Amino acid sequence: MALRRWMVLALMLTLAAQSAWAQFSKPETAVQYRQAALFLMGNHMQRIKAELDFSKPNLEVIRASAALIDVLKTVPFEAFVEGTLDIGDTAAKAEIWTEPERFKKLASQMQDRVGELDAAARRGDIAAIRAAFGEAGKACKACHDDYRRKK
Amino acid sequence: MALRRWMVLALMLTLAAQSAWAQFSKPETAVQYRQAALFLMGNHMQRIKAELDFSKPNLEVIRASAALIDVLKTVPFEAFVEGTLDIGDTAAKAEIWTEPERFKKLASQMQDRVGELDAAARRGDIAAIRAAFGEAGKACKACHDDYRRKK
Repeated sequence: MALRRWMVLALMLTLAAQSAWAQFSKPETAVQYRQAALFLMGNHMQRIKAELDFSKPNLEVIRASAALIDVLKTVPFEAFVEGTLDIGDTAAKAEIWTEPERFKKLASQMQDRVGELDAAARRGDIAAIRAAFGEAGKACKACHDDYRRKK
Repeated sequence: MALRRWMVLALMLTLAAQSAWAQFSKPETAVQYRQAALFLMGNHMQRIKAELDFSKPNLEVIRASAALIDVLKTVPFEAFVEGTLDIGDTAAKAEIWTEPERFKKLASQMQDRVGELDAAARRGDIAAIRAAFGEAGKACKACHDDYRRKK
């Protein structure tokens, strides 16, 4: 089996994140960091949705987007650090910090679903991609519903 | 030699970008997209610099950051599309669109240098990482000097 450098990067980023707090020179930087990663993930979810709405989805577009989302799936979470509530234009709710275990669980579920979406995209089975995309979208929404303020 | 899924992703993203323009629902989205990718790349360049400033750099932090920068290196450029000059808070200069070949050449040079930084990080040779980081930083700056407005 080919080396899954993919999974290795996710692990690398998780381990590296343990010393990442010092990397955010100020709270605004942490907010900008997590928003940047989440924005890219959201944009690529939209691209996949747009393809799935076509009668003939472009599998290469779906694969590229699913792969990038998979790489980024752990990135935002190192930036939900203490002291970044009510900073800049963050929509993060206080419950992220008062319910850390549940927030972490939802993040982990999203990461699993996104991994499954990437796997389905690599296999190239549109029906499986469609199902996995639905589950990944639900996992994104579950967290947004409870932990992101309406703008 | 293990499959370089890395390089595969870079290629996938480049190919997918050819149909990406339709993915930006409005010019502001394209600006936000390229800024998000460039911000993450810049943040991880800073993390590598911070490690290299320590007497004992953390190689795992450097590797994770170099790998993420390498994955993102083609991402911003699909969003320098027509109609996104003077949009939002973009610092992009008009020369990006009047000198497209030179802009593309500088982007390509940056991508090569970032690939070399990632390769050096994977080998784990701090002296080589330091040299490759310097070259990558210069390649970033070359483009910023000519194509990014001072804020």
